Amino acid sequence: MAKKKVKNNPVIEKIISLSRRRGILFQSSEIYGSINAVYDYGPLGVELKRNVKDHWWKNIVTARENILGMDSAILMHPKVWEASGHIENFHDPMVDCKKCRKRFRVDNLQENTTHCPECNGELSDPKQFNLMFKTTLGSTEDSSQEIYLRPETAQGIFINFNNITSSNRVKLPFGIAQIGKAFRNEITTGNFIFRTREFEQMEMEFFIRPGENDKWLEYWKNERLNWYKSLGVTPEKLRLHPHSEDELAHYSKACYDIEYEFPFGFSELEGVADRGTFDLTQHINLSKKKLHYIDQQNGGEKIVPAVIETSAGIDRTVLTILADSYWEDEENNRTVMRFSPEIAPIKVAIFPLFNKQGMPKIARKIFDDLKFKISSFYDGGGSIGKRYRRQDEAGTPFCITVDHQSLDDKTVTIRERDSLKQERIAISKIESVINDKIQSS
Amino acid sequence: MAKKKVKNNPVIEKIISLSRRRGILFQSSEIYGSINAVYDYGPLGVELKRNVKDHWWKNIVTARENILGMDSAILMHPKVWEASGHIENFHDPMVDCKKCRKRFRVDNLQENTTHCPECNGELSDPKQFNLMFKTTLGSTEDSSQEIYLRPETAQGIFINFNNITSSNRVKLPFGIAQIGKAFRNEITTGNFIFRTREFEQMEMEFFIRPGENDKWLEYWKNERLNWYKSLGVTPEKLRLHPHSEDELAHYSKACYDIEYEFPFGFSELEGVADRGTFDLTQHINLSKKKLHYIDQQNGGEKIVPAVIETSAGIDRTVLTILADSYWEDEENNRTVMRFSPEIAPIKVAIFPLFNKQGMPKIARKIFDDLKFKISSFYDGGGSIGKRYRRQDEAGTPFCITVDHQSLDDKTVTIRERDSLKQERIAISKIESVINDKIQSS
Repeated sequence: MAKKKVKNNPVIEKIISLSRRRGILFQSSEIYGSINAVYDYGPLGVELKRNVKDHWWKNIVTARENILGMDSAILMHPKVWEASGHIENFHDPMVDCKKCRKRFRVDNLQENTTHCPECNGELSDPKQFNLMFKTTLGSTEDSSQEIYLRPETAQGIFINFNNITSSNRVKLPFGIAQIGKAFRNEITTGNFIFRTREFEQMEMEFFIRPGENDKWLEYWKNERLNWYKSLGVTPEKLRLHPHSEDELAHYSKACYDIEYEFPFGFSELEGVADRGTFDLTQHINLSKKKLHYIDQQNGGEKIVPAVIETSAGIDRTVLTILADSYWEDEENNRTVMRFSPEIAPIKVAIFPLFNKQGMPKIARKIFDDLKFKISSFYDGGGSIGKRYRRQDEAGTPFCITVDHQSLDDKTVTIRERDSLKQERIAISKIESVINDKIQSS
Repeated sequence: MAKKKVKNNPVIEKIISLSRRRGILFQSSEIYGSINAVYDYGPLGVELKRNVKDHWWKNIVTARENILGMDSAILMHPKVWEASGHIENFHDPMVDCKKCRKRFRVDNLQENTTHCPECNGELSDPKQFNLMFKTTLGSTEDSSQEIYLRPETAQGIFINFNNITSSNRVKLPFGIAQIGKAFRNEITTGNFIFRTREFEQMEMEFFIRPGENDKWLEYWKNERLNWYKSLGVTPEKLRLHPHSEDELAHYSKACYDIEYEFPFGFSELEGVADRGTFDLTQHINLSKKKLHYIDQQNGGEKIVPAVIETSAGIDRTVLTILADSYWEDEENNRTVMRFSPEIAPIKVAIFPLFNKQGMPKIARKIFDDLKFKISSFYDGGGSIGKRYRRQDEAGTPFCITVDHQSLDDKTVTIRERDSLKQERIAISKIESVINDKIQSS
């Protein structure tokens, strides 16, 4: 179903192949012919994604006293999307061929075309195709209603503005952040997990005094750019792209895209946008509720705060990490995922050199002592060279090997993934050595 | 929309009220009149939920070498639900009143009733109402298709059986586990977050040699029961309920419910089920793909493994924790959430006794040193009694207060939430004292 042969960039094709072979990502429902632009994370992929999400949560929520976390539902009242402008604005104009019935996005056709590029049949007038998925809530005739799968998590924050501010003592400026799934019935998909129909967002709405917009937009675009660098992404491949007037979304007064140079070119990773007072004002008008901040410092003045939004896609961040980490080390005849140790799914693999002479017993003991503290993997099978190569592909930064010398002096070798350097360390020092290496990386 | 006045148990009503007041849970889309049986987690609630999920992931995935994690999409090919039996079996029979148009679940009506309990009009013949939410994927006429929001995460595991086993070296028995959202268009809802239309599951499918079912069912029912105890849930309020023949789901050969004694009575928290070879066999038949385990120890014999499933609801676990923790301490005129320190959203609150004499500076320093290591909260406002009470309601197990003596001897008081005991400790010892208390709790 919805199966298109998409021609991907050749580097992306290699990453797709590695991801499938090593259990990072699979296309959804493969055994039934797949569904287009929907993906499942495998055992390595889910750990990588968890690390990215935790890293964001720590940076945005845990480390900042003035940003609160939340987790709103995917299903919301349809009036939310009326207020947000998504019902009115979130669609692409499409035309149908009256002869072959194919549908095309108007902006993918040549200007002023009136005939089908495939069969030359007459094209219909453009119709608007909304990108939100629709479903029906409720079972009884008097209560069932059409609702939408949210196309962004942000509105779940705005509609809870009063709930959050009344249950927490907050002072401007403050933020509300959440991580969650969103859905868009995209017409154009492709480039692996760059644009998918089901995706996960990490969004933060930062509420400020109107007038301070420029200052905070500046602050957040830098903070967010630095966050990608802290994930180990090559700084030279990251850039900020300020939106020109005609690129701005309907809610936005100013916006920067954080872009990464993917193998298919620079593309958007995250939007840092000045949403002004658009969203809160719209919800105030439609709900007739008072979504105000009460300014105790100014005699209880009621303010509708302005908003700076940081809106990141988790799947795009994962794709960035995969693309940025992929390395064909021809000199050493190996493929390496150079994940930063902090976000690598497995931090350390532990091997007995041979499956004899008590080596497995020592290696097992090291693994059992370590596994609850540092994400670890035990591998006792195959040649040592093959085991190293498998961990290189999995992006494991450190490998510990128990060998003959270990039996005598309680030391092991530790091998670094990228440099291939090996050193001997005491078994008793493994945990601290690895922690030091992770922190200094 | 879909707004019913549900009469809840009075204790549940108190928990709903506290949850709303303290930012644990809010009904979705409140400003537009709410939507029924869908909830948003606030700042305290999201941290509690994150702790529950992390606790499960560590126990099921991280701590067990033979269980792999994954994260499949909510949107799947519709054939998945044909194979699983959900299209055929996952519905409730309903009747409509031909006069007033109201709809009723047949099993909620008296036996052999032919007339409407409200207006005495004639009732229609029963129709099947499927509990899956339906939506449409794709935009072009030749590719759009009706799909469903998954009503369980389990099928995402079964359809990826080959993807996971071919990208990881596994030996029977082994498990595949995931956490994710699921959706059911429930007719009967209520009891706060006990039965909601959007909910989150933690499911694990444990693949075994056919014939070993009883042994592993026994193993997992005990493991899972113990997990709830490890969350601090009162052991006497937990029980195992074995399903009788007529209670079994269509896929199940044997099943235990883990039940908790909620204020509204014993109800299901988790199902531990012997699903036999039902799911893999169904997917083999419908997809024509070979979802086999190749047994290298027996000359490459192909086996369709049997499955023991552990299926837990996160929202129900959160409700269990809220209900089990809620304590009206009349003697001390306070309401306390007695969260186990390990899952409490905030582990420690730090107060200056007064906002003067350098106390805030010391308290701030303690907070800044601690906040990245232990979930901490700083509160400098209001009377110390009020601040303690606020933390009691938030379930914070420990409060640190900087007082006059702190200025002289670098000690603080630490107060335990449940016992109200206070002791003096050195500022330099705070981290280790709290870590010890968390671990020994």
